[in-house]
Parts: sequence; structure tokens; C-alpha cells
Amino acid sequence: MSSSSAAPRRGDGSDTAGARPPMREALVAAAFRLFLERGYEQTTVDDIVALAGVGRRSFFRYFPSKEDVVFPDHERCLADMKAFLDSSPEDADPVRRVCDAARLVVRLYAENPAFSVQRYDLTKKVPGLRAYELSVVWRYERALAQYLRGRLGGRRDGSMRADVIAAAVVAAHNNALRSWLRSKGQDDVGAAVDHALGYAQSTFGGLPVPPLPEGPEDVVVVVSRRGTPLWQVVREVETAFARD
Amino acid sequence: MSSSSAAPRRGDGSDTAGARPPMREALVAAAFRLFLERGYEQTTVDDIVALAGVGRRSFFRYFPSKEDVVFPDHERCLADMKAFLDSSPEDADPVRRVCDAARLVVRLYAENPAFSVQRYDLTKKVPGLRAYELSVVWRYERALAQYLRGRLGGRRDGSMRADVIAAAVVAAHNNALRSWLRSKGQDDVGAAVDHALGYAQSTFGGLPVPPLPEGPEDVVVVVSRRGTPLWQVVREVETAFARD
Repeated sequence: MSSSSAAPRRGDGSDTAGARPPMREALVAAAFRLFLERGYEQTTVDDIVALAGVGRRSFFRYFPSKEDVVFPDHERCLADMKAFLDSSPEDADPVRRVCDAARLVVRLYAENPAFSVQRYDLTKKVPGLRAYELSVVWRYERALAQYLRGRLGGRRDGSMRADVIAAAVVAAHNNALRSWLRSKGQDDVGAAVDHALGYAQSTFGGLPVPPLPEGPEDVVVVVSRRGTPLWQVVREVETAFARD
Repeated sequence: MSSSSAAPRRGDGSDTAGARPPMREALVAAAFRLFLERGYEQTTVDDIVALAGVGRRSFFRYFPSKEDVVFPDHERCLADMKAFLDSSPEDADPVRRVCDAARLVVRLYAENPAFSVQRYDLTKKVPGLRAYELSVVWRYERALAQYLRGRLGGRRDGSMRADVIAAAVVAAHNNALRSWLRSKGQDDVGAAVDHALGYAQSTFGGLPVPPLPEGPEDVVVVVSRRGTPLWQVVREVETAFARD
């Protein structure tokens, strides 16, 4: 299930922090310096532009509001996620595909651990930012659910299953991401997210597999000790069913 | 899986709309009348108290802000949910228990369909209310996850699994609830939520069963045609494992 190598890559490399326009970058840096020194609420947009040495209009060219400067890369990441999902091969395993799409987010965080940890600490302290973050998470979840609806919509309960799988994938991803942020960015976040997404994938992965080819009615026999954990039995069943 | 009969009931019946204090009730009614007539943004707290014939202080005694009057019952419902989860028998199936806890929310909506549909329409139009609602949903999800962590925390990946299951249960519940709200409260929302929660329960229900008693190493044999949908095989496995 650990499949970071299968995760999508952005084509143009524009996601690296250094590739942001310098003025935008300067505004983010100034904002975070002030947020950490004075507190978020006590910092105005005027303070930020003064420190960055630019005009107010420049700030609002890049950021609709003070909140947006705290999450400067999510709009682009969301666009990348949608583009990745839109370009999915028709025969892609949809659950695997949304797990790979979710990896775009952790990659964004992992690009700049110090910044990500600072933001995490800031967001915990400011209820308005927490609300903003929830709306960002919701938009990622919607993007995953929308793709899944397209793939499962025809099935019975397709829309409900799409919502449930999207929510589970986001929750798994975020659990691993938050653990990493709490560790101040010390652990291997890629491996932790792969592990958590592997759980989501093994839970739902059996559902949307394409129908098996018609053939002689093979019989699958799975033998297991009663004490075996159920997840392990389910994995055995999955493996047996996947085998040709 | 349809188990509305197993859903929790509030002990004191205080959740019925008529049992709200009359002034609080009058404020909610006045607020919604104005929100629908003029729009949410165009209505001030002064407008609401004028129509309700009470003073500003009375408003803020019941509601910290204008947003809170849109969701007048969630604080109590959240408290009921926590109390329900806190009073769980130790041998309760944790996934079933969080599904039953989620039913407290749909019951709140079903008590007053016209009000719930009005609020749904309003919330869709006002981004600030949408953000508020996301934070409410998040708090319900946290309550479920916290209970599950207590039950699964000792297991490998307990906290991650708790988060995933809580998110899946909330997503299933909310999918059914939203369909009902879109139908203007026409369908049987209890049955729809039971069905959606049944999916969540059957997906995760096998996971947190208490460890099987030590005994002779029974062997479980499941035989299945290769063409059988995986979920059906998994259900067979679950049943076989549950059987004594």
C-alpha cells in the first residue's frame, strides 16, 4: 500500500516555495514574522505591507484577505488536485486515485516543514484561521468526492459512498499530517501518510474495483484461524480475488 | 442495519422545539422571518430584537452572535451526544455506538422539517454560515472521534482509525441528511440515515469487535465464487467470525 512513488507530480515545478513570485513571497514572509512577533489579530495588512516595503494594492493583488496570506498555496494545490483527478485514466482504481490526489497536499506541507509547523501553531491559536482551514479541507474533500461520484455515481448509493470514501481519505491523510506537525516536522511524513492512506485504501479498495471478467465460476477458498484479526482476513480475501 | 429503534433518546424531552424558552423561541422566529424577507446580511441584531419585542441584552443572553441564532440547537445536541457517548456500556460495539450518536443530529433536524429546510437554503447562500456549519460538523466529528480513540486507542493505529471512522460516519449521515433537505423534507429521513449509517457500520463494524476469547484455534473457511462482489464476501467473513 505504500505507494509514494505512484503519487502525482506537478509538471512545472512551480510548487516549490522559491518559485513563488518574489513580492508574494516577501509578503508571506513579512506576514508570518509579524504574526509570530505580535500575534495574528494584532497584525494589520498595513503592518505587513510596511514591513515588506510594498503598497496595499500589491497585497490585495495576491491575497483577497489577511486570512489568505496564512494559506498561500492551497488555491494552487486545489487546482493541481482537480487537474490530476480530471486527467485520471478511465480504468484507474478510483480509491487509489483519490489517495494519490491527497498526497499532493502532504507534499505541499513537506516542501517547507518550518513554515508548515509555524502555520500549524498559529492556526491552533486563532479560531478564525481554524475556520478558514476547515473550509479549505472541505474544498479538498469536495474535489475528491466529485471525482468519486463520477466513477461510482451509476452504482447503487454511488453518491453516498463517494462522500464516505472522500471523508475517510481526508481524515486518514490529515491524521498523519497532524501527527507530523505536532512532532515539529521531525518524522517521515510521506511514510506516515502512505500508511494512513493504505488503511483507507484497504478499507474501501475492494468496493470500486472494475467487475471481474466473465469466466468459469472460479471458487475462492480462504482459510483462516478464528483468532486472526478481521482486517488481515479481508486482506487475504482481497489478494485471493485479485489473483488471476 | 436499520436500527432507528436502537437510537438514543433524550431523557427529558427538552429537545422539542416547543420546550425552548419562549423568548428564545421568539428570537429565533423573528430572526428567520427577517433573514427570509431581507436576507441574512441585511438583518441586524437590532432588527431581530425589535421584531421580537425584546431588548438587545436578551438576544445576547441566548446567542453569542447573529450566526448562533441560525443554529440554535446544536450546542445542546452536541452536549447530548457527548453525554450519550460518555454513558456507553463498556462492551458496546463502538462503531454502532457512534452511528447511534449521529442519529441524535438527524432527529434534531427531523423534529422541525420546515425550519431545517429554511436554514439549509439560507446556509447555502451565506458563506459565513457555511463556515459556521462546517465548524459545527467538525465538533460533532471530534466528539465521535474522541469516544472512538478511547475505545481503539490501545490498538495499533487506534487514533488514525478513530478519525477515519468518525469522518466516514459523519459523511454518511450528512449525505442522507442533505438529500432529505434538498427534497424539502419530503422523504423519510430516518430510513435514509439508517441506510447510510448501515453502510458505514458494515464497512467498519468488523474492525473494532472485542478480541475473540482464547480457545482452540478454530478455523474459518469461507468459500465464494470469484465473481461475488467483495463486500459480500467480507460480510460472509464477518458473519463466520461472529458465529460461535
